[in-house]
Amino acid sequence: MSQERIPFDELVSLLTQVFRRHGTSETAADVLARNCASAQRDGSDSHGVFRMPGYLSTLASGWVDGNAQPVVEDCAPGFVAVDAGNGFAQPALEAGRELLLEKVRQNGIALMAIRNSHHFAALWPDVEPFARQGLVALALVNSMACVVPAGGRKPLFGTNPISFAAPRTGHDPLVFDLATCAIAHGDVQIAAKEGKTLPEGYGVDADGQPTCDPEKILDGGALLPFGGYKGSALSMMVELMAAALTGGNFSFEFDWSGHPGAKTPWTGELLIVIDPARGAGSNFADRTETLVQAMVGVGQTRQPGDRRYRQRAESQRLGVAITAADLAYLKGLLD
Amino acid sequence: MSQERIPFDELVSLLTQVFRRHGTSETAADVLARNCASAQRDGSDSHGVFRMPGYLSTLASGWVDGNAQPVVEDCAPGFVAVDAGNGFAQPALEAGRELLLEKVRQNGIALMAIRNSHHFAALWPDVEPFARQGLVALALVNSMACVVPAGGRKPLFGTNPISFAAPRTGHDPLVFDLATCAIAHGDVQIAAKEGKTLPEGYGVDADGQPTCDPEKILDGGALLPFGGYKGSALSMMVELMAAALTGGNFSFEFDWSGHPGAKTPWTGELLIVIDPARGAGSNFADRTETLVQAMVGVGQTRQPGDRRYRQRAESQRLGVAITAADLAYLKGLLD
Repeated sequence: MSQERIPFDELVSLLTQVFRRHGTSETAADVLARNCASAQRDGSDSHGVFRMPGYLSTLASGWVDGNAQPVVEDCAPGFVAVDAGNGFAQPALEAGRELLLEKVRQNGIALMAIRNSHHFAALWPDVEPFARQGLVALALVNSMACVVPAGGRKPLFGTNPISFAAPRTGHDPLVFDLATCAIAHGDVQIAAKEGKTLPEGYGVDADGQPTCDPEKILDGGALLPFGGYKGSALSMMVELMAAALTGGNFSFEFDWSGHPGAKTPWTGELLIVIDPARGAGSNFADRTETLVQAMVGVGQTRQPGDRRYRQRAESQRLGVAITAADLAYLKGLLD
Repeated sequence: MSQERIPFDELVSLLTQVFRRHGTSETAADVLARNCASAQRDGSDSHGVFRMPGYLSTLASGWVDGNAQPVVEDCAPGFVAVDAGNGFAQPALEAGRELLLEKVRQNGIALMAIRNSHHFAALWPDVEPFARQGLVALALVNSMACVVPAGGRKPLFGTNPISFAAPRTGHDPLVFDLATCAIAHGDVQIAAKEGKTLPEGYGVDADGQPTCDPEKILDGGALLPFGGYKGSALSMMVELMAAALTGGNFSFEFDWSGHPGAKTPWTGELLIVIDPARGAGSNFADRTETLVQAMVGVGQTRQPGDRRYRQRAESQRLGVAITAADLAYLKGLLD
């Protein structure tokens, strides 16, 4: 596939127009376009332009409200709730961000509980900005029933990612974003698209039997948790934190069968943000750097997030890589 | 080995006397004895009476201060710090508990950052009581360099457990306690004691080569994280949350070589506690029960914590199981 390079701002602008044209508010379009372009810029291929057909078919199906107005609720000195109004999670996060930051600076820790929301993106963009402000952030989001709990036979949990960001003196923040399933759903989709097989232990087919064929996983099968019962316990925690605590749906609770084309899970998201400066310890970002240097010292040369930052730097120099086909697809959406 | 049964309170009393006799304050003895007896009662064999020789050799070595007076600091409306004074983490948690609970009820979320502390016990006893009060609790503790980070060659991280507790309507709380290494250090010790071999992928020997021999892991070798790079990222997060955020040592930072017999890691612990009732969602404990029923429905018949509760019920009926040798050992410590 021939590859083109496009300036980041131009990609954001193009995506914003696409979202606007296909049924989202100006605010939602801005937020989602920047999110999607950031993933494309950073080489998070499964969450970049690759996701646009899913966004648009979902909007067309009437499953999500692209014009939803998030309602921010000041529940307690450390507790912000946001009702996303059946819209996307990212504009809901933006709507509550200032109040959350105020509470974090005031109390040392605060949480934002987003419910009635759709999260169809990478999770690291939700936490990285907090670390750039010197804060520690943890985000959990549940998704759609596609993961079989340890010891179970049928899918119940979502891919249920956990994302974490911490400031690091003299460097970009230390950020990880990991699905609690053995493989991310987007990567199964990419493997299927590319006709690849997967390693063993990643998923089961529609009969609950192990399979290495991504098509069989997507066709009524399911993923497995990473790390056996431990990953399964963490996935359960994500269900409780992102759904039970927020008032959102569990991954198995929503029924989108009346909305053909719908792809976005209608659940919840929890963010916990901490201001280390309010504690009694030494400079947190210096300590992060001490740990990273020790990790390098024992041979772990590549840190979580490194690949994204390298891709980001390259994209800033050369423009964001995008296939000619994807670029033509995006432009065609504006005709 | 012949097994005896002893009433829980009698075991607590016996352990309290042992701790008192071997250099701890009355408060520390009470807290540690109850903790150790609870693990024995619940069948957490690697953290029950099995741990006593380690506690006592550590106290004898002068590495830990059994008479430390924890100092509680009210850092911010949501932030409690406790300097354990080179004592054990559990008495420090007790010292800060009331202030933490007050802050959680007030703010909806609060944290307790314990530093300068030694944690040599299971982690679930630290979170379960919060869930019995309707709260959600997460605890992280780092330990001693015995886990090789993903991609690395030498140990750096601790076993770094994550423990979580959530209330569940009509049932004991849902609680998990999982080491972020592929196997708990205590279980390696037990396997070594029993002369068993371990599955592949659990650890490496002193040369960094994979081994299934628990003795080789204990003899200068190291454990591996569970679930590859994902478990490694979570272990890193535990280092940052339990040490960098609290002001405690990283797992690789302390040097106990001047204290032969010392077994307890001198690090930190972080607790995050949330009051779901301060949010906008529905009844959290009911929602937990809904999730558990769904887990049962897809075939996951055994939930996290179930085994402990079954053992606990049996211990309450019949007394706490203990080998005759262990009971004689404990009584001998009072001679």
